[in-house]
Amino acid sequence: MPDARNASTAGAFERDESYVNDRIVADAPAGAPTGDRVGAMRWPVEPGRYRLVAARACPWAHRGVIVRRLLGLEDVISLGLVSPTHGEESWRFDLDPDGRDPVLGIHLLREAYDARIPDYPKGVTVPAIVDVPTGQLVTNDFPQITLDLSTEWREHHREGAPDLWPEALRDEMEPIMRRIYTEVNNGVYRCGFAADQQSYDAAYERLWAALDWLEDYLADRRYLVGDHITEADVRLFTTLVRFDAVYHGHFKCNRQKLSEMPVLHAYLRDLFQTPGFGDTTDFPQIKEHYYVVHTDINPTKVVPLGPDLAGLLEPSGRESLGGSPWGAGTAPGPVPKAERVPATNTPLGERA
Amino acid sequence: MPDARNASTAGAFERDESYVNDRIVADAPAGAPTGDRVGAMRWPVEPGRYRLVAARACPWAHRGVIVRRLLGLEDVISLGLVSPTHGEESWRFDLDPDGRDPVLGIHLLREAYDARIPDYPKGVTVPAIVDVPTGQLVTNDFPQITLDLSTEWREHHREGAPDLWPEALRDEMEPIMRRIYTEVNNGVYRCGFAADQQSYDAAYERLWAALDWLEDYLADRRYLVGDHITEADVRLFTTLVRFDAVYHGHFKCNRQKLSEMPVLHAYLRDLFQTPGFGDTTDFPQIKEHYYVVHTDINPTKVVPLGPDLAGLLEPSGRESLGGSPWGAGTAPGPVPKAERVPATNTPLGERA
Repeated sequence: MPDARNASTAGAFERDESYVNDRIVADAPAGAPTGDRVGAMRWPVEPGRYRLVAARACPWAHRGVIVRRLLGLEDVISLGLVSPTHGEESWRFDLDPDGRDPVLGIHLLREAYDARIPDYPKGVTVPAIVDVPTGQLVTNDFPQITLDLSTEWREHHREGAPDLWPEALRDEMEPIMRRIYTEVNNGVYRCGFAADQQSYDAAYERLWAALDWLEDYLADRRYLVGDHITEADVRLFTTLVRFDAVYHGHFKCNRQKLSEMPVLHAYLRDLFQTPGFGDTTDFPQIKEHYYVVHTDINPTKVVPLGPDLAGLLEPSGRESLGGSPWGAGTAPGPVPKAERVPATNTPLGERA
Repeated sequence: MPDARNASTAGAFERDESYVNDRIVADAPAGAPTGDRVGAMRWPVEPGRYRLVAARACPWAHRGVIVRRLLGLEDVISLGLVSPTHGEESWRFDLDPDGRDPVLGIHLLREAYDARIPDYPKGVTVPAIVDVPTGQLVTNDFPQITLDLSTEWREHHREGAPDLWPEALRDEMEPIMRRIYTEVNNGVYRCGFAADQQSYDAAYERLWAALDWLEDYLADRRYLVGDHITEADVRLFTTLVRFDAVYHGHFKCNRQKLSEMPVLHAYLRDLFQTPGFGDTTDFPQIKEHYYVVHTDINPTKVVPLGPDLAGLLEPSGRESLGGSPWGAGTAPGPVPKAERVPATNTPLGERA
């Protein structure tokens, strides 16, 4: 999502958490959505009907890109990619020919929002799922989007897709995912968008308390919950992979680089080298987004050339902790050619 | 000195290098200075007559503080310390009672500049040497100040003072010091003050080329030139010790942290743990200066709490390269109590 910023009077950052939270569900009748108001409508699962609009840059959208790929939904839900930077008004399809999404035919993601709610009054965020026939936004409720890909779209998963949201583990996953959201995913923003020293200091201590907890928690287990990759790992990954490239300097999360946290960096490397994670990560787009969009913390819009990220390719040694990435499933195949991150944009190079 | 910024039309940073470059010399007659114009006057060496005004924050002033201490000139040239931040108009004596330097009796360093040149038209910079009886600026020519402390004040050096500017080594030192000045001391500023991407990119490549050269150059020699500490090491140190705390994030010199450059960081640790270096380094003042003064690159003025600098205390292992810090001389004694960096402001703690 864009970086909606509601500074409280105390100068602390608070995220606007209201979304268009319709859902696409397996038991909805075919055709038009049912329900009595926007935000409570139910849309039917239907291959080819919807388009996931994401920004490579955005950690919240990155979740959806990873989960779609891990579950093998590429041929079922298409992917539209907006450019790394956005203006006040909207994310833009500047990466596409003529700056127009080839499926939706729109230049600005705002057009899909306005098609659903005329003069949409709030921030235009990614990820967004759009109904292709009508061009209308269905949902931008990012935490629900990935869970529904796992559960409601199960019939269309690839053979061997992992269970990212296993029923037996949900009670264990929920508090961990909540803590990761408030303390880490959002914690880095709380540091970066603090408008005064006191708010920043509090945010910094809170972030590092959480990272120290994770450094300890992950020391003897390969994944956050259970013995294979779950939604919890996806959610932690999208912040960790941006940490040294952006949050460390731009958001002043600089007690250490993540590469100086031995356990967390090994955990990150392990995931980065797993299909679906590093191969969906585009560092130039990530850096451009943060450093160009946040002119109130980087007025020059100069994008750093560093850091050197080659260390992400070093062996993690995490295999010895047991577990296996896919549980009873298998790895996803290669990234579809049209969706590949350019080799120059990742230390994975041609492997991405 | 303050960060005089003359942006060229191309957006590249160019440092204003003109100073009031009078000199204090051993062979000048006692009394008033001789010479026909400001900038070419010669003042006599005279213990107790002059005050060195420095900012702990400033790398250019830090040179003078280190050299004065290494040479044992504390009782010969007094030290005035301005506060870490400065306004448009001047550095200020905010650290002193009533915000007034106890020897010069002034609130703003500008007053000493104006006493010499009414309505002094250029930037008020540190280090500055002030003639205490008249309150007039003598010189702010920072590269000459430290060399003159070594040569012109030799009669007043402590017993065992090292020769920081040895005649036999000057031919070798000069090109190295020049390269360190243009490529490293100034190179970090060129990155941080680049007003556009192209200027930054060029500055970044130029800086890292120099740091890679030094990483190689210092691999098999303990000090830059000869086998003991010289002025060249002092000049490199004041930039390296600020690197991870400020230049890496604030100036976007972020290919690596210096702590990720094995040779350079060991060289830095070796010096940091040597009397005169770490014990004159005040990290909170350094960070406050850069992050608060440069509002055009850090508008929020929030000062990062990181990085963790405890690694500066780890053994350097550099002793095995041979050489000895002081040549035929000895280490300076403890820092005079009134000049000590607070234990909370350095990883050296009570040792500083």
